[in-house]
Amino acid sequence: MIRKIEPNTRDRALPDYHLDKPREECGVVAVSGSPASAELAYLAMYALQHRGQESAGLVTVDEDGREKTYKGMGLVVDIFDDKILKEMYGTLAIGHVRYSTAGGSSLRNAQPLVVDYQDQPLALAHNGNLSNAVELRNRLSSEGAIFQTDSDSEAIVHLIARSRREDQDHKIDDALSQVVGAFSVVLCVGNTVYAARDPRGFRPLVLGRLGDAVIVTSETCALDIIGATYIRDVRPGEVLKIQDGSIEELRPLPPAEPSACLFELVYFARPDSQVWGCSVDGARRAFGRQLAHEHPADADCVLAVPDSSNSAALGFSEVSGLPFELALIRNHYVGRTFIHPTQAGRDFRVRVKYNPVRELVEGQRVVVVDDSLVRGTTSRGLVTLLRDTGAKEVHFRVASPPVRFPCYYGIDMPTREELIGSNHSVEEIRDHLEVDSLGYLSMEGMRGSVSDFGPFCDACWTGDYAAPLVDIERQKATEDS
Amino acid sequence: MIRKIEPNTRDRALPDYHLDKPREECGVVAVSGSPASAELAYLAMYALQHRGQESAGLVTVDEDGREKTYKGMGLVVDIFDDKILKEMYGTLAIGHVRYSTAGGSSLRNAQPLVVDYQDQPLALAHNGNLSNAVELRNRLSSEGAIFQTDSDSEAIVHLIARSRREDQDHKIDDALSQVVGAFSVVLCVGNTVYAARDPRGFRPLVLGRLGDAVIVTSETCALDIIGATYIRDVRPGEVLKIQDGSIEELRPLPPAEPSACLFELVYFARPDSQVWGCSVDGARRAFGRQLAHEHPADADCVLAVPDSSNSAALGFSEVSGLPFELALIRNHYVGRTFIHPTQAGRDFRVRVKYNPVRELVEGQRVVVVDDSLVRGTTSRGLVTLLRDTGAKEVHFRVASPPVRFPCYYGIDMPTREELIGSNHSVEEIRDHLEVDSLGYLSMEGMRGSVSDFGPFCDACWTGDYAAPLVDIERQKATEDS
Amino acid sequence: MIRKIEPNTRDRALPDYHLDKPREECGVVAVSGSPASAELAYLAMYALQHRGQESAGLVTVDEDGREKTYKGMGLVVDIFDDKILKEMYGTLAIGHVRYSTAGGSSLRNAQPLVVDYQDQPLALAHNGNLSNAVELRNRLSSEGAIFQTDSDSEAIVHLIARSRREDQDHKIDDALSQVVGAFSVVLCVGNTVYAARDPRGFRPLVLGRLGDAVIVTSETCALDIIGATYIRDVRPGEVLKIQDGSIEELRPLPPAEPSACLFELVYFARPDSQVWGCSVDGARRAFGRQLAHEHPADADCVLAVPDSSNSAALGFSEVSGLPFELALIRNHYVGRTFIHPTQAGRDFRVRVKYNPVRELVEGQRVVVVDDSLVRGTTSRGLVTLLRDTGAKEVHFRVASPPVRFPCYYGIDMPTREELIGSNHSVEEIRDHLEVDSLGYLSMEGMRGSVSDFGPFCDACWTGDYAAPLVDIERQKATEDS
Amino acid sequence: MIRKIEPNTRDRALPDYHLDKPREECGVVAVSGSPASAELAYLAMYALQHRGQESAGLVTVDEDGREKTYKGMGLVVDIFDDKILKEMYGTLAIGHVRYSTAGGSSLRNAQPLVVDYQDQPLALAHNGNLSNAVELRNRLSSEGAIFQTDSDSEAIVHLIARSRREDQDHKIDDALSQVVGAFSVVLCVGNTVYAARDPRGFRPLVLGRLGDAVIVTSETCALDIIGATYIRDVRPGEVLKIQDGSIEELRPLPPAEPSACLFELVYFARPDSQVWGCSVDGARRAFGRQLAHEHPADADCVLAVPDSSNSAALGFSEVSGLPFELALIRNHYVGRTFIHPTQAGRDFRVRVKYNPVRELVEGQRVVVVDDSLVRGTTSRGLVTLLRDTGAKEVHFRVASPPVRFPCYYGIDMPTREELIGSNHSVEEIRDHLEVDSLGYLSMEGMRGSVSDFGPFCDACWTGDYAAPLVDIERQKATEDS
Repeated sequence: MIRKIEPNTRDRALPDYHLDKPREECGVVAVSGSPASAELAYLAMYALQHRGQESAGLVTVDEDGREKTYKGMGLVVDIFDDKILKEMYGTLAIGHVRYSTAGGSSLRNAQPLVVDYQDQPLALAHNGNLSNAVELRNRLSSEGAIFQTDSDSEAIVHLIARSRREDQDHKIDDALSQVVGAFSVVLCVGNTVYAARDPRGFRPLVLGRLGDAVIVTSETCALDIIGATYIRDVRPGEVLKIQDGSIEELRPLPPAEPSACLFELVYFARPDSQVWGCSVDGARRAFGRQLAHEHPADADCVLAVPDSSNSAALGFSEVSGLPFELALIRNHYVGRTFIHPTQAGRDFRVRVKYNPVRELVEGQRVVVVDDSLVRGTTSRGLVTLLRDTGAKEVHFRVASPPVRFPCYYGIDMPTREELIGSNHSVEEIRDHLEVDSLGYLSMEGMRGSVSDFGPFCDACWTGDYAAPLVDIERQKATEDS
Repeated sequence: MIRKIEPNTRDRALPDYHLDKPREECGVVAVSGSPASAELAYLAMYALQHRGQESAGLVTVDEDGREKTYKGMGLVVDIFDDKILKEMYGTLAIGHVRYSTAGGSSLRNAQPLVVDYQDQPLALAHNGNLSNAVELRNRLSSEGAIFQTDSDSEAIVHLIARSRREDQDHKIDDALSQVVGAFSVVLCVGNTVYAARDPRGFRPLVLGRLGDAVIVTSETCALDIIGATYIRDVRPGEVLKIQDGSIEELRPLPPAEPSACLFELVYFARPDSQVWGCSVDGARRAFGRQLAHEHPADADCVLAVPDSSNSAALGFSEVSGLPFELALIRNHYVGRTFIHPTQAGRDFRVRVKYNPVRELVEGQRVVVVDDSLVRGTTSRGLVTLLRDTGAKEVHFRVASPPVRFPCYYGIDMPTREELIGSNHSVEEIRDHLEVDSLGYLSMEGMRGSVSDFGPFCDACWTGDYAAPLVDIERQKATEDS
Repeated sequence: MIRKIEPNTRDRALPDYHLDKPREECGVVAVSGSPASAELAYLAMYALQHRGQESAGLVTVDEDGREKTYKGMGLVVDIFDDKILKEMYGTLAIGHVRYSTAGGSSLRNAQPLVVDYQDQPLALAHNGNLSNAVELRNRLSSEGAIFQTDSDSEAIVHLIARSRREDQDHKIDDALSQVVGAFSVVLCVGNTVYAARDPRGFRPLVLGRLGDAVIVTSETCALDIIGATYIRDVRPGEVLKIQDGSIEELRPLPPAEPSACLFELVYFARPDSQVWGCSVDGARRAFGRQLAHEHPADADCVLAVPDSSNSAALGFSEVSGLPFELALIRNHYVGRTFIHPTQAGRDFRVRVKYNPVRELVEGQRVVVVDDSLVRGTTSRGLVTLLRDTGAKEVHFRVASPPVRFPCYYGIDMPTREELIGSNHSVEEIRDHLEVDSLGYLSMEGMRGSVSDFGPFCDACWTGDYAAPLVDIERQKATEDS
Repeated sequence: MIRKIEPNTRDRALPDYHLDKPREECGVVAVSGSPASAELAYLAMYALQHRGQESAGLVTVDEDGREKTYKGMGLVVDIFDDKILKEMYGTLAIGHVRYSTAGGSSLRNAQPLVVDYQDQPLALAHNGNLSNAVELRNRLSSEGAIFQTDSDSEAIVHLIARSRREDQDHKIDDALSQVVGAFSVVLCVGNTVYAARDPRGFRPLVLGRLGDAVIVTSETCALDIIGATYIRDVRPGEVLKIQDGSIEELRPLPPAEPSACLFELVYFARPDSQVWGCSVDGARRAFGRQLAHEHPADADCVLAVPDSSNSAALGFSEVSGLPFELALIRNHYVGRTFIHPTQAGRDFRVRVKYNPVRELVEGQRVVVVDDSLVRGTTSRGLVTLLRDTGAKEVHFRVASPPVRFPCYYGIDMPTREELIGSNHSVEEIRDHLEVDSLGYLSMEGMRGSVSDFGPFCDACWTGDYAAPLVDIERQKATEDS
C-alpha cells in the first residue's frame, strides 16, 4: 500500500534473466569467525546470484559490535566494489540476494534487515515466505510496532525484540515458534550468529567450515567458491547458535512432517550444488532419463534449452541414444536494463536470448528438452524460432509435470490463470506450442527418480500444501462472509 | 556507535557554507489541503535551506492514504527534480532540511522519518534536540522497540505507536508529554497533520494559510516564497491538528517558562523572516546600533562580514556615522565539495569565501562587524586578509556576547574547549585576532535591544539551561560514580 | 545543425543564476611554472565562476609533455574533487569556465580544446567571439579540416596546425592574424604557454605572478584568490610567450583602435576585480552617483537588487542622501536544477530569488537601483513583489543606458526583438514596469564616470560595432540576393 | 603518450569476461534505410558484445543529415536505455563495440568516430588494426592535421577529409588505398553508408537485408537477432556504397592474397555465426574430431571448458566415444567490476568463473578440451580445481596449435614473453599444467579441418605475417641504428 521513491534508484524493469520461469526469492549467507568475512560473504552471494538478482545486501559486525551495512539494487558485482568491501571489516558477515515475492521492489525492502536492538545491531536474512505474515503484522501493529519495510521478514525481528523471554536464545526460539510457513534464516545479534530452518524445511540451508570460520548458506556452490568444506544440511526445525567458531544446537522448533521443495531440484538450484543431500545435476539427469523412457521420440537429436535444462537433456540423450546438441546459443550479456525494441515491429524476446546454430537444426527432427513449463510463452517463441531455422519436426519434452498451483512458500509463480498447465490439457498445450509431440514427466516418474531423498513438497503440481496457509484462509473467510 | 554505509552516497566533507559558525539542525514544513502540496513544500524547504544543508526529505500522502517518500544528501535543488515532484502527488506534504546534531550524517538519518503504523503512513519532521533521548531509547529498547536510525526523533514515533491511549489525538499527547527538551515538530498520521512545539518553545514554528491550504513551517520566509499569509506562531506547548483546511487546537502540553532561542535572532534565521514575532533584520540592526553605543571606534568605515552581519553593520553605521561599505565580496558558488588545496602551500579557507575590494580597504581604518564569534579561526584569517590588502587599522566588533557554553536544544556548537569565549578574556581574544580593538555586545545590551520580545534562552552565553538535561545529568552521575 | 547526446549528461535547463541578465561567455586561466598548477588553476576558475557556469575544464601538462584533461558540465566545485586534482600533476595548467554563446551546450564543446598536435598536446581556452568564424570554418573544411566541436574557437587550433610558417611562434602569429573579432586566449603547445588579446582588446586578460609562477587570467579576482601579484593587463594585440617563469613579448598583432567592453564594468566583472585598469566597484559607484545626479528621486530609501547593483546603489545613496537598505534578501542556494513549480499556479521566478524585508519596504517610498535592464521581465516581477509587500512608491533607476543592440564579441544578449530598450521609449518601459518613475543613466553620464579609462566598446547601446562583422555581413548579403 | 581523464568514468579494471584469452578488438554494424535503425543497430551490437566489452557507441543520421551520437564505457545493455534510443531517430545507424588494442582505454577513444566534415556528419566504425598507423599519423600531423583520439582509425577520417579527389566516392577510395593492415570498416558521410574490407580480408564483414533496409555487420549472428537475411560476405578489397536501400559496388581496392583470420574460427566468433562462409560451430567440431584422432586419451569422459570449447569437446566426444559432460558450471553473472578478494588469502580467479559438478569429476579420468592456450594461467588453475574435486587423471587437449606470435591485425595477444607456447616445449607445458597428458591440434590437422575455406592468416601460430608491418619494421630500423 505504501511505495517509496528511493533516491538514486532509477525506475527500471526487472532484468529478463529468466524467460518465463518462476522466480526464487532469495539466497542467504552468514560467515562467522573470519577476518575476511565480508569478502567471503561477497563471493558466496555472487555464487548465489541465481537465487535473486533484484537487490543484494551485506552486513558486517566487528568484535566491538560495530555494524556496517551496504545494500543496492541489481547484481552483486555491480553493487559492491573494492572500496566498500575494505570498509566492511569485522569477523561476522550476513549477506542476502533477493527477489521480491513479498514486499515491493525497492531498496527499502532489500535485506539483510538491520536494526538497532538494545544497543546492539540485529541483522536478519531470510529465504522463504511466511504464511501468517499478515496476521503477525496486524497483531504486532496493534501492540505498537512500527514497520519500516513491506517485507514479511520484518515480523520476525519484531517478535525477537518483543519476546518476554529473558535469555537471548529463548527470545529467538520464542519468535521462530510463532511464524508459520517457509523460513531458512540467518541472523546475528551483536557477535552471535543464529541459523534456523522451519520445521518442514521448505528451503535449503547448509553448514560449512573454512579453517576456523563457520559458514551457513543456501547452497553448497557458495561453499565451493570459497573453498569451504560442506559439513551437513541444517535440519528442518533446527536452530543453531554460532560463536567464535563453535556451533551449538539449540532446542529445535516443534517438529512437523518434512517437506523439501522439489522445484529446487527441477529448476532453481545450481547443477553444481548438493541440495537435500542430492546432486542437483544428478537429479536432473535422472528426470531426463525417466522422461526418455516415458516419452521417447523418433528424432535426429536432442537440444537443451540452455543452461537450466542441459542436465536433463543429457539424461534424455543417454537413454534415447539420440545425440545431444548445443544447438541453441544463449547470450549472457544481459545487464540491468535490456531494452525490448518497440519500433522494429517484432518480438525479440526469444531472439535476444537464444540463437540457433543453423547447421544443427536445418532439416532435422529435433527433441527440445526443457526443465519446466510455466506460461508457455517462451517455449512457443522458441518453437517458432526453430521452425524458422528449418527444423523439420519439433518434439517438446518437459522434465517435470505440469505446474498447476501457486507457491506460498517462497517461489514467485504466475497466478493460476496464467499457468498454462492449470487450465489446459496436454493436447491443448501441444496445439498451442505448435509442436509435433509433447511429453511431460509424470509425477510418479519424478518422485521415483529421487526416491532416495525427500519427503518433498510438490504443492505446485498437486495442490497439497504442507504448512497452514493462515493468511490465505483468513482472506478467503473474509471474502466469503 | 553504529554506522551505515549508504549506497550511492559518496563520502564527503560537509560543504563549507558557514565558516566557523554554529549550525542549526533543521527546518520543517507541513502543507495540508493543497493539490500542489509537494511543490509548495519543495519551495518552503528551499527557503529554509539555511537551516540545514546536509540532507533533505519530502513525504506526500494522497487522499487514499498512499505515501511517497524521497530523500537525499545535499541541497534541495540538487536532490529534487521535476520528475520526482510530479510523482509525489497528494494534498499533504511533510518536508525537512537537516544538519546532524544528533545521529550520524547519513541518508538513513535523513528526515522525515516514515513508518508504516497500523496500515497508515506516519511521517515526522523534527527541529530541536531532545534532552532525554537516551533515557527514552533505553526504555523503549527494553520494551522491545527496534530502532532504524540514530536520530533522537525516532523515540517520538515509538512513543506514539506504543501509547495505550485509545484515540489518535491522545496518543500524540501521550508521546509528546514524555519527551523533554526542544521540539518543533510536524507529523502526519494518514491524512491528518499534527504540529507541536515544546512547552518552552525553544525553536520557532509558524502557521500560515494559502487559499484553503494550511502551512506550518519554521520561518516566515518559507511562507513568503509561496505567497502564503502568516497567521501566527504556534505557541509554546501548543498541539495543533490540521485536516481538510481546518485547524483544531488540542489540549496543550503541561506549561513551562517560555524560553525562545536568542541565537535565532543573532545568526540563524533569515533576516527577511519574522521570528518570535520580531523582525530578524530589525533585531540585528538594533544589536548593531547598541554595539556602536557600547564600543564606538575611531575609524573610516564599517564593513560587514557578508551576508549574516549586514544588518548589524548597517545599524553600527547608522549610530556611528561611519559609512557602510560592502568591501568584502563573498563567493556564493560553493557547491557540494569545495576542495581546499593542499599542495599550493597556503590556507585558502578565508580567501575562497571572501575577497576585499582593495580601493575600499587600502590605507583605511576599518571597523569589521560580525554577528558572533565562536572559534575565532575565520575572524583571524579575515583580519590577516584585510591587513594584507592594506588596511591601516582593524577594529573588530561582535554584535552578540562571547559564546561560552554548548547548546543542548538543537544547535551544533563547538565544545567548550573550542569556544574561544569560554577560555579567554576579551583582551586575550583581541590579541589572538591581532586587531587594534575588539568589542562584544554586552548581555544587557543584547537583551535590551529586543526587550519587547522573549523571554529568551541565553544558555550559550550564560549557561542557564531552561529544560532539564536528563541525559547529560545521568551521564555525569555515571562518570562520577 | 548537429547535436550530440553526451553520456552521463542529464538534460537540464541552464541554472537560473542570473535573472534576465546578459551572459558572459567565458573565463580563462593559464598557470605556468608551479608544481601546484592544477590547484591554482582550480581556485582561479572558482573565482571566475561568475563568467561561465555551464561547463568547466582543466588541462595540465607535465615536464615530459604528458597532458591530462578533465571537463564536466556544471560548477567548478561540483566537477572537480580531490582525487581528480591529485591526478592532474604538471607545472602547467590551462583552465576555462564557459557559457555557450557560440556552439551548442554540451560537454563536447567544453573548453579547453585539447588536441594531439605533432605528438605534443595543444590546449586552448578562449574568451570572446570570432566574427569571421563561419568563413574560417568553411575555408578550413574545404581544405580537409574536420571539426569535432561546434565552437568557433576550434578554427584557431586548425589555423595553428596548418600554418606553413616554420617556427612555432610564427605559426601562432599566423593563426591569430587571420581571426577577426574578440579573443582573449591562453593556449599551450607542450610546455610553452601563449597568451594573446585581439587588437581591439574587447575582453579582459591580466598578467600576474606568484613566486616563480606566471598566471594569465580574465580578472584580477582570480589572482587575489591565490595570492598572486597583479603585474599588468595583457595589452590589446599583444602576444606573450611564457616558459620556465620567463615572459617574452612576441611581435604584436596588427594594431587597431582599442575597444574595451564597457559592459564588463556595468555588470559582468566582479566588483573586487580591476578591469581595464579600473576598480569595478569604483566604476559602479561612479555610475550610481551620476545616476543620482541625473535622476534624483523623492523617496525614503535606496534598495539594491543584490548583488550586482550593490555598488551602484551605494553610489546613489551617497549622492542622494537617502539611506541604503539591504531590503531584498537573495537566496544563494541555487543549484544545478532549480524547478519552477507549475501546478502551484503562480510565477515563483522572482520569489525564489529575492524576498523583501517587510519592515524596510512597507509604507515606504523606495528607489530600486539595478545595474542594467535587458528584457525587463524580472524587474517587473520585482516591482510587483515590492508593491505586494506594501511599498508606497517604487522609483526605478538603471545605472546604465538602455541596451538596444546585440553583442557579437562574446556576450549572450537577447535578440533585438526581446531587448525592451530597443523597441520602447523610456515612458513605455516605465508603464510596463508599473513604476512611479524610471530613470536610465545617460550615455554621456556613463562615459564621463569612467573617462580616465577606455576607449570602450559601447555597441550594445549605440550599435557602433568596432570589429568587422564578417559572418553577419555575408549572411545578410546571401539573404538579400 | 597522452591520457585523458574522462568525467563520470570511474576507474576500473576491465571486466574479467575472458580468462586468459586473446581479445578481439571490435564489432561493427551499419543499418541503412530503416526507420528503426537505432534499435536494429542496438540489437546487433548486443549480439556482437563478445567482440568488445569495453565501450560501445551508436550514431544515427536522419534524412536531413542531423546526427546524434551516444557512447559509453561498458556493456551495450548498461549504456543504452529506452529514452536514449527514442531520441536517436534517423534511417541510418552506425554502431561499434570495442576493446582497446590500439589507443588507450577511455570514452575518448570509443567509436564510432564522429566529426563534422564539410557541414555533414562523418561517422566511422572500424574493426582491425592498421599496420602503418604511426607512419600515417606522422605524415598527417606534419601536414597540419590535429588528432582528437589515440585510435589508429582516426587516420582514415583525416585521409578522407584531405583527399584532393573531387568526388566523395573517390575520396573514400583514395583514403582506403593508403592504409595498410586489417580493416573491416563501416562509415557514413551524411546519408550515405560505405562499407569496406582490406584487400587481404583479415576481419569478417557480412551483408544482409531486412525488408528495404541494408545491414553490414561483423558476424551473421547480428543479422539473425534482427531477423535479417544473410546475403553474402563483403569481399576482401571490396568497397560498397549503400543508399536508399540500393547497394553499389565501387571500384575495389588493389588486390592482395586473401588472408582470413583463422582465430575467428578457433575462439572469437560466436558458434552460431557463419564466418568465412563456414559454420563456426562446424569448424570447431571438426577441430575437436581431428584432435581426438591426433591425441586420443584413455579416460572416462570429456569435459568442455564452457562455453567457448563446447563445440570442440562435442567433436572430441564423437570420435573418441567418451561421453560428453557439462561438468564445469560457469557463472555468468559477471558484471562491470568483479572484485578479486585479497584478504581471503586465496586465488579465486578460476573458482569465481567455474565450479565443477563433483559427481561427474570425483574418481574420474577426465579429458579437458580447451579451444586454445595462451598464457596457461587459467588452465593451470582449472587443473588444480579438478584435482581438488577428486579427478583421478586429467588429460588436457587443445583444439588449436600453440600460439607463438603476437597479432598485428586486430587481436590483443600477450607479448611473446608471455605466450607459453612461444618459449616452452609441449612437454614443458604439460609439466607446468601438471596434467597427465597434453595434446595440441597440429597445424596440418587444423588446416585440413577447414580445407574447403580460406586461405587463412595463421601468423599467430606460424609468424607468417601477410600484410607489411610498416610501423614495426620502421621501429626496428630505428632501434637498430
